[in-house]
This record gives sequence, C-alpha cells and structure tokens, in this order.
Amino acid sequence: MAVRAAVAGASGYAGGEVLRLLLGHPEVEIGALTGHSNAGQAFGALQPHLLPLADRVLEPTTAEALGGHDVVFLALPHGQSAAVAEQLGDDVLVVDMGADFRLEDAADWERFYGSAHAGTWPYGLPELPGARAALEGSKRIAVPGCYPTAVSLALFPAYAGGLAEPEAVIVAATGTSGAGKALKPHLLGSEVMGSMSPYGVGGGHRHTPEMMQNLGAVAGEPVTVSFTPTLAPMARGILATCSAKAKPGITAEDVRAAYAKAYADEPFVHLLPEGRWPATASVHGSNAVQVQVAYDATAGRVIAISAIDNLTKGTAGGAVQSMNIALGLPEDTGLSTIGVAP
Amino acid sequence: MAVRAAVAGASGYAGGEVLRLLLGHPEVEIGALTGHSNAGQAFGALQPHLLPLADRVLEPTTAEALGGHDVVFLALPHGQSAAVAEQLGDDVLVVDMGADFRLEDAADWERFYGSAHAGTWPYGLPELPGARAALEGSKRIAVPGCYPTAVSLALFPAYAGGLAEPEAVIVAATGTSGAGKALKPHLLGSEVMGSMSPYGVGGGHRHTPEMMQNLGAVAGEPVTVSFTPTLAPMARGILATCSAKAKPGITAEDVRAAYAKAYADEPFVHLLPEGRWPATASVHGSNAVQVQVAYDATAGRVIAISAIDNLTKGTAGGAVQSMNIALGLPEDTGLSTIGVAP
Amino acid sequence: MAVRAAVAGASGYAGGEVLRLLLGHPEVEIGALTGHSNAGQAFGALQPHLLPLADRVLEPTTAEALGGHDVVFLALPHGQSAAVAEQLGDDVLVVDMGADFRLEDAADWERFYGSAHAGTWPYGLPELPGARAALEGSKRIAVPGCYPTAVSLALFPAYAGGLAEPEAVIVAATGTSGAGKALKPHLLGSEVMGSMSPYGVGGGHRHTPEMMQNLGAVAGEPVTVSFTPTLAPMARGILATCSAKAKPGITAEDVRAAYAKAYADEPFVHLLPEGRWPATASVHGSNAVQVQVAYDATAGRVIAISAIDNLTKGTAGGAVQSMNIALGLPEDTGLSTIGVAP
Amino acid sequence: MAVRAAVAGASGYAGGEVLRLLLGHPEVEIGALTGHSNAGQAFGALQPHLLPLADRVLEPTTAEALGGHDVVFLALPHGQSAAVAEQLGDDVLVVDMGADFRLEDAADWERFYGSAHAGTWPYGLPELPGARAALEGSKRIAVPGCYPTAVSLALFPAYAGGLAEPEAVIVAATGTSGAGKALKPHLLGSEVMGSMSPYGVGGGHRHTPEMMQNLGAVAGEPVTVSFTPTLAPMARGILATCSAKAKPGITAEDVRAAYAKAYADEPFVHLLPEGRWPATASVHGSNAVQVQVAYDATAGRVIAISAIDNLTKGTAGGAVQSMNIALGLPEDTGLSTIGVAP
Repeated sequence: MAVRAAVAGASGYAGGEVLRLLLGHPEVEIGALTGHSNAGQAFGALQPHLLPLADRVLEPTTAEALGGHDVVFLALPHGQSAAVAEQLGDDVLVVDMGADFRLEDAADWERFYGSAHAGTWPYGLPELPGARAALEGSKRIAVPGCYPTAVSLALFPAYAGGLAEPEAVIVAATGTSGAGKALKPHLLGSEVMGSMSPYGVGGGHRHTPEMMQNLGAVAGEPVTVSFTPTLAPMARGILATCSAKAKPGITAEDVRAAYAKAYADEPFVHLLPEGRWPATASVHGSNAVQVQVAYDATAGRVIAISAIDNLTKGTAGGAVQSMNIALGLPEDTGLSTIGVAP
Repeated sequence: MAVRAAVAGASGYAGGEVLRLLLGHPEVEIGALTGHSNAGQAFGALQPHLLPLADRVLEPTTAEALGGHDVVFLALPHGQSAAVAEQLGDDVLVVDMGADFRLEDAADWERFYGSAHAGTWPYGLPELPGARAALEGSKRIAVPGCYPTAVSLALFPAYAGGLAEPEAVIVAATGTSGAGKALKPHLLGSEVMGSMSPYGVGGGHRHTPEMMQNLGAVAGEPVTVSFTPTLAPMARGILATCSAKAKPGITAEDVRAAYAKAYADEPFVHLLPEGRWPATASVHGSNAVQVQVAYDATAGRVIAISAIDNLTKGTAGGAVQSMNIALGLPEDTGLSTIGVAP
Repeated sequence: MAVRAAVAGASGYAGGEVLRLLLGHPEVEIGALTGHSNAGQAFGALQPHLLPLADRVLEPTTAEALGGHDVVFLALPHGQSAAVAEQLGDDVLVVDMGADFRLEDAADWERFYGSAHAGTWPYGLPELPGARAALEGSKRIAVPGCYPTAVSLALFPAYAGGLAEPEAVIVAATGTSGAGKALKPHLLGSEVMGSMSPYGVGGGHRHTPEMMQNLGAVAGEPVTVSFTPTLAPMARGILATCSAKAKPGITAEDVRAAYAKAYADEPFVHLLPEGRWPATASVHGSNAVQVQVAYDATAGRVIAISAIDNLTKGTAGGAVQSMNIALGLPEDTGLSTIGVAP
Repeated sequence: MAVRAAVAGASGYAGGEVLRLLLGHPEVEIGALTGHSNAGQAFGALQPHLLPLADRVLEPTTAEALGGHDVVFLALPHGQSAAVAEQLGDDVLVVDMGADFRLEDAADWERFYGSAHAGTWPYGLPELPGARAALEGSKRIAVPGCYPTAVSLALFPAYAGGLAEPEAVIVAATGTSGAGKALKPHLLGSEVMGSMSPYGVGGGHRHTPEMMQNLGAVAGEPVTVSFTPTLAPMARGILATCSAKAKPGITAEDVRAAYAKAYADEPFVHLLPEGRWPATASVHGSNAVQVQVAYDATAGRVIAISAIDNLTKGTAGGAVQSMNIALGLPEDTGLSTIGVAP
C-alpha cells in the first residue's frame, strides 16, 4: 500500500528536491503539488528536470488540495507552516522543511525571526543522540536547517566526546540554491559566478541558535558559535569548516577515535580515511555526508570539516530520511549515498 | 540471478559514470574494477563520489581480472578495445564505450583515428530506426559518441521525415568531462571557468563521420555535416544546436508533426511543448534527452536543439540502456529521466 | 581640457562598464551618474567594483542632471533614448548604447521592437567599411548590439571578399551579463551555473535584422541570417560560431587572404595564427576581438569564429572607441587589447 | 627614461599577471620573457590574452637573457630564486614573487619547505607598519604570499590596536589560479566547477608561518594561527574570513575606529561602509583590497573579512606596488582600484 504524499511549495528548490527523491522512493505515490504565485501553471515549466511530473498542474496551497494524503511536506516561507499544519489533522504526517518548529527556545525564535513561536517538533537529524527515538511514529517532523545539518554532523562527535571547548568557530560556504529562487540582485548568475562573498556576519544568521541548540545538547553545557556563512559560485553544496580549542590533554588519536566511533554505523555519514578531505562535488545530489577531522597541535584546535548537498541531506533528503523513520520504513529507502560527479 | 558486471577503465569519467548507474541497477552486481596507471589504488581516492565502492581496490586491466563476468564495460582509450574484447569470449556481453566499433566505413576510421579498423558492432542508440532489433540478444555493443547521440536525436526525425536538405550545420557546447580526465593545460579549471572556446573546427572532429553515418542512414542519401564543437564552463552536458535548409514546401506543422510522431513512445526522449527550450541542467545526471524544434520561415531552415548529459545518455546511460535491451531486461531498468537540478 | 561625460543608466551592467572604461580614459572627466529606480542610493552599493566612485550618489535621469556635459552615454531600456536625446541639444555628443537608432529600416524596427522607429544614427562599429568616416565629428552615435558586433566582425571579410553565399548560420554563446541586471528566474545563479540553454530560436532575436543589415551592406546583396543565441554559464563574453557555404571555386587560401587583408591594420581585431582558436577568457575586460576562420572542404563552408567581451567591445568599449573617433581623439585612447585572464 | 623589466617564469599565471600590469605601466618597457619547459614557443600561444606580446618568443631562463634590465621579476618554483638572483648583480632590482625570501626564521623555512633557507628580503606588503621605509631604494623585494596578503590586511589593525587575543582562526577561499598552471587532477575544470574543498588542513599550509610572522610583529607578541584554505570554483580571488577573541572590554566602536584609522590613507585598501561586505568579484583584476570588520558580542569575537584578487594584489600587483616604492615612483603607478565586474 503506497504512502500518498503531497508537497506544498512544490515550485521552489526544496519542493523540487523532495519531489526528485520521492519519484524514486518505492513506497511513495505523489499526490498534490501546490504553490502560491505559480498556481495554475504547468509543472513542466516550473521544474523542467522532473520529467515524470511535466504534465501536472500546480494547485493553490489549500486544505482541500493537501487533504487526503498520508504525508504532507511543507516547503513554505518561514512562519506559514503552523497554520497549514493545523488544518491537516493529527493523523497526517507533516514534515516541515521550514524553520518554524526547529527551535526549543521561544525567545531565540522571536529574536531571530521576529514573530510568535509556533512550537517545537521532533527534530529530523537522526544522527544526533536520541533523535531517532523521537522520530519513530511521530506525526510531526521539523527538518533541520542546511547549515545546522552540516555543522552539527561535523562537530557533534567532538562535543559528545568531551574533546572541545564550548566555543566553536564556523565558516561555511554554500551553493546559491540555499538562498532559494527569490529574485534578488545578488543572486543573479552574473553576480555570483566568479565571486565569493560573506553575509549575515557577526552572529546574525538565523541558523546560529539552531547550531547552539544542537551542540549544547550533546556537550552538556552551552556552546557559543561564531558562524560566518559565505556564498560560493556553485548551485549546490555546503562545505562547513568548523573548529574549537581542544580540551587539555587531547591527542590526535582521541579525536580520530571519537569520530570513528560516532559514525561507525551511520548509513549516510562517511568519515573519510586520514589524508583525504571532503569535496561538495562528491555528495552532489546524494544524501551522504563526508566528514574529516584533524588536530592542529600548533594552534591547539580540533578542525572538523563536512560536505553535504544543501538540498539533499541539508533539506529534502533529511526530510525523507526522517519520514522513513517516522513511518517505520528502512531509513535509507529511496535515498542514495552516491554523488553525481564530476 | 544477478548479472555480474566488470568495468575496465573504472577510474575515468565514463567508467565512474557507468558504475554510478550500475550501483542503482537492481539486476546488476558489480565485479572487477580495473585500470591502468592507477591500479593498486583505493577506489575511494579515485572516485570519491561512489561511496559504496570506497573500500575497493583498482585491479590492472587483464583477462584474468575481467574474466568470469556476464557483462564487461570497456572505457578504454581509442584502439584498445579490440584486443581486450577478443580475450573475453563470445558468451560475454562486451559493451564498448570507446569509438573502436562505431564506424561502418573502414576508410573513415583510418582517416580520423589513424589505425586499422577493428570492425563494426551493433550500435547502441536504440532510438534510431532498426537499432533495437540489432541490439536484442547481441553480445557486442558499440556505444555511440556523446556528440553523435545528441545530434542524431536532434535531427533524425527531420531526415526520416524527408523535411531537410542533406547539409546539416551543427554547433554544440559540451561540458569539460567530455574531454576526460586527461591532464591538459586547456582543461584546467582556471582556463575553462568563464570561457567558451571552439576546437576541432572545420571538419576535423572524430565524431563527424559518425553523425554522417547516422543521418545518412535515415535520410536515405548522404548527409554532409558541418560540425563545430565548443568547450563550455560546466562539468557535464551537451547542448546541440542543429539546422538544415527545409525541403521545398515544408511547413512548421510538418516539422512539429514529424518530431511528435518520432518520439511519441520513446521512454527517454522528451519533445518539449512549443515555446519551451532545452537546458542541460534539466538532464544533469539523467538519461533523458530534451528536444525542441522550430521552423525559421525567414531563413528557410529547420532548427532542432537537444540537451543531454554527455556522461549519462551520451555515454554510460546509453550503454546501460543498450545492455538492458541486449539482456532482455526492461529498457529503462536502473535508468532515470529525472535530472539533478538546480 | 577634459571631456565631461555623463552616464544615464549608470547602475546597470552597460552603464557600469562604460564608467569602468571612462575612469581610465585620460581625456574624460566623469560628471553626472543617473538612474531610475535606484536614484538616491550610494553608488558604492550599486557598483562596488568602481571604488573611485563609491561616494557618489545616483541622481534621477533628468535633462537637468544630464545637461552641461560634452558627452552623454545612454544605457536605457529600448525606446527611451529618443526622448532623452532630444532634450540634450545638438552640440552634445550623445552615445546611445540601446537599440533605438541602429536599424535603417523602420519596418524592421517596428516588427522586432513593436514601437515607432526613432531614426538612424551613425553606426558605432568602426571596423565596417565606411563607418569611421560617418563617425568623425558626429554628435550622435548608435552603438551596435553585442551579438551584431561579434557576428559582423566574424563574417564581414567573407562577404566583402565575395567568398560566401548569402545565407549565414550563426550560433552564439553569451555570458549572462548580456541579459542585464533584470530580475528574471532563468538568470538566477542557481539556474545558469552548469547549464547551457538557447533562447529566441527561429529568427525571433532582435539582433537578427541588425546582422542582416551589416552583412548585406558589405555583400552588396541581401544576406539571410539564421541566428540562435545561447546562454552560457559565465558572466561575460560572446563566442560567435558563424558559417556560410563558400562560393564556387573558393580555396582555403582565398579565405585566409581575405581575413588577413581586412584586419591587417585594425587596432582591436586580432586574426589568430592558423591552428589557434579564440576563447572568450582571452578578451575578458578588453576591447579586443579574436577572430579565426577555416574552410571546411567536405562541407563546403567558410567557418568564422569570433570572441569578444560583450560588455567591452560588445557595448561600452565600442561606445568609447566610437566616441574617440567622433571627438578626434586617437581611436584607442583609454582602451586596451589586454584581457584579464585566467 | 623607461625602466626596463624582464620576467622569469613568464608563461605561468604570476608571470602573465605581472606582464598584464607592466603593459599598462607608463614607466616600464618590457624586455626579456623567459621560461623553462616552454622556451622557444610563441608567447601568443602561451598567454593569448596578452595581445601586444603575441609575437614574442619565450627565451630560456639564463643569466644572459635576464641581464641588462633594471628590474627582474622572478616567478619561479620555490627554491630557485636565490641562484638566479645571485647572477643578476646588486644594482638590479630583483622582485621575487616566490616564497624564498619571505620568512625571517630559518627553522620555519626548513620545516615548511624542506630546503636550506636562502635569506630574508624587504617584505613587499607596504601597508604593514614600517614596510614602506624598508622598500624605498631597496634592490631586493620578497613579494608576500597571496593568503598572507589577504589575512594580514584583514587582521593587522586588530592586532596593532591591541583589540584581539593572539589566537586567530582563518578560513580562506581561493580561486584555482592560486594553485598555478600545474597539471594536477584535482585542478581540472571538471573537478573544481561546482565544488568547494579544503586542503592543507591542520596547520600544514606553507603560508601559515608567514601569517604568524606578520601578525606577531604588529601584535608585539606571538600570534597563533589556525589556517584552513579551501579551493573555490572560480579562477581568481581570495575571500579571507578571519576572527579572534576580543580582548576584554573591547566594543564594536573600538574595532571600527581601529580599522578606520589604519586604512584612512591607504590607496588600495578600502574599508567598506558598515552593512556592506566584500566580494571577490568587486576586486577582480584590480589591486584593491576590500575589508570589513564586525564585533560579534555573543561569541566575543572580532571578525574581519577581506577580498583580494590573488593574482593582482595577492601577487603581481603587490609586486608592482612595491617596485614603484623601491624605484621612487608614485606608489599607484600602473595600478588600479577598479575591478572588472560583473
């Protein structure tokens, strides 16, 4: 019996990516595709890479259109998910790819998003301690942000293992799809090709409190995060370069052992052999995470670097992985660790 | 019972791509991976995007290594396939992704490749008239060149329908992976990013006689091809812009009808609705071909444009599609029409 | 005594490029910078690469702002130049980088632009026969389109020399800056990176009649043009691949000789030595044109390829070159043939 | 009377860039162009963007070829500059764009470069305290590394002003030209386009001791540097994201004031207005440095970001700027603060 899935916000990048994955998911049948300003348009004109859906028409995002599905994926602007979710009923699995239900602290939400906090749902990063148990059987999932996914997976073994001081410094490069399809001048091809530039510098990026929440939970103490995102001339991918001072007495072997243990049984996280480093191209279009870690004895820092596809593991792949857990399916159903490279 | 497949030349781009597809093929089990200068190296260092094969080691390309498989894919430099194929026996399906067995005319081969002609094998472009019948049950397959794939699928309905004069003008842009992993200065990232440049201008490209062979066969008369390839700043994709003078009395409706008929039942070729044009990003990583055609009344020309992924439909996807036919499997097994975009 | 220059439309790509060149022009002093929707903004926020103008403020495009200059460059949307030019007086040199005054045939204008024809000004492509004489002392200049610049310089020696049949087939790739700073979804970085796509196929591009006008004038007979533009994943550059059937009896030597003669004394057009081909990276940011030509004996065609920077020689550099001629300055003042590569 | 300049290593990226700048330098006449493996080749085939030098021929790098010039620029592999410099005589200005004479500490050199230390020359980063005085009249100049240029200019005001703790964390993205024209698989266009990847992680990059030397000198105490370089999909540019814990009691105003003071009179360093951030595209091909700084109160860190063109200010532009000082010319002769964008 197929799981029937709808996608709200199907014309954007997150919506397109979850459909790309669901089209290859053996247990899922794709139902309604809804949108806002593009409703009524042929889907083939909106997402020309999804040929099997080319003849579909985008419907408006309404309770009627989204009703009657087993799973509804929400790829909506921040602050709009709660109202839609309320209309869907408690027996429908709602997977929110927006930010609305990620943060536990209402004050954090209000400070970074400027609206009332809608609540907190089970967090869709199964690799974090305790996350799988919370997702099993759940009818609500908050998919993590793309940067928090890359950063948490790069750093949590260091904090879970008590290896690092609670002040992390993170510089991450993202492909432009992370900014969505919004028509902004700085996202034009002419502007981004051949250019690297930072944004949200100095603590202002909305993903910062989510990283602090995740790292603090595994560290057992508050972790301060200095986070600088940069826009890179590529469509997809996040490379997160993360570091923190090592706790006294830590050795390179301690660091390696902690990461090897943390990821020994994870289906999607691949700790690279020593001497090799992640590249975003290697995980292009895949749900894999490539991680490497080093101990810089001169600077006394643990340096952990991860590469993910921001749209796959960073958004839609993480959503499908969490859906699989919630529905009791094998966690990797419909997901791949194979990148499309070169 | 799984089909056991080996890949000779597994460390290059064609070899890597066929492995990417075979890893997702439900009927195939991957056997030996062989190479030349990289033999002995960890496969994870050579093809880091193929995580499930990361712990494999590249073997030397020998009859011993390649023996005992049901299918052997050859991704070797031109001129080396015949010797390897001879050693493999007539009961093994040999799929040659090189040029050695594509051309029917020995003089063409000798003029463009400068060595003795090895022969002609059934041609792995199933969409051409008669091609599927020749592939069924065959133990030898010559996979087409990437440009001839894009060009033949753009133009054959025009020639099959008697719409176009036998002088085609073709300008195609390719991603750099079409040139392979060869260490040449003009293929360095610093040289190709931000630059378009032609090569092999004036009839010198080796794919020209293959295009003439394919188009001439469907036209029923010799077709002259003026072919100019250009190198584009992208890793994958071919956009082939093809045109020819329309035969007298031809209308835009005639053109549209011929293409609609030719591709009505093809699983991988998608004739776009009028007003939409192909983009290589839409077929990135997929076996799909996007085609559009127009009739320019002022210039009196039929203009047909196709977009493919040079590594997938243009090489490894075409190889797997043809293998499926040869083995009696459903033609689209393990293949997708869904691109990885944006 | 400095030439005082104003730029209307200074916040766009053409306006920015003409300012980049004028900042290095020893005879020019930069006056008013005007714009429309961005008026009132700091220029440093609009064109952050033009550091010497960072503290300027964009003024509204009015007769007052533009008055009192020796030269006014117009980088305005099509159809707006005539009204502005009328207000400026006959003693001011007006250089229109838009399309309004390029076409001689009013019917062509109306068919392709859908408004009343404003007239025809001396055409700013000095390399064409007779063009320099028309520009000398002129107070009005129509700067050619970027594609007509590339195509006319690739093909005019073939038509001037009577080498080619009057049916040209042209496929050109352009960088995204050719489409301007307009906020359109298909121009987003996520869409253009890694993708080649055609547009305006089948005779619909507005630059087609301009090419026919230029080539017909030198051929002495009407020349039909089949023109297919494609969008390439780079910010700047045009590579124009142009061909036509050779007239009977033409040899490769005839072709080479005609091009060598045509460009022997041109300061900006460089006919490459045999065996080398143009690349857009080589002319990045420069006013140079790189041209190569071949005779394909099998197809019986002359194939001429040019590379320009669409914003420099294709727009603002051509404008400054023509301004120099109009003002009696050395033609290459403030212009360079040196590209910024790699 | 023109300054006559030779370039050893003229076929590489650094050599080509210094020639690009010297061609526009009003006081310089270009003499010998020498190389190693490419000697005897037409320069137009090696550096096709430098049209005025297209007809030159590359000579072998010998004392004869380099003799008789006022200035000799060395763009040689590490370790080869000393032997060449010795042959040139004390009255010739030798500008070494390699690493040989940058480090003051012989042990640092031996540890990172594995050969005997050749010595220390006046350091060509004029913006550092005391650097201009050392360069004036000097006959030897050690041009800084590209990363140390970007990092030192981002951070030195913080250390000169006593604002930051002596532990800097730096993540920098570079264009691929920073790795030179070496034929290495990971530098192929197919590999770098669409990909971000780190290298030399954990303290191993050779530019680390040079950064520590520069920052320690202005801080008056040893500064530890954790440096992670990453390779970005662009040909040129460095974006350096640098941070350090703020000293106790420091405010955002203190930070801003220190940077404003440090760069008030610098011709090439532009401290951006608050709210704007550097982009490498804005300095493409220019000698400008764009710097911005923020104080992250939550993390307690000073975050300073700089953008340079690695080949211009990061190599050849810095070399010409220093040459100007050494020769008593205005420091900005032949150099520009205007980027080629978009």
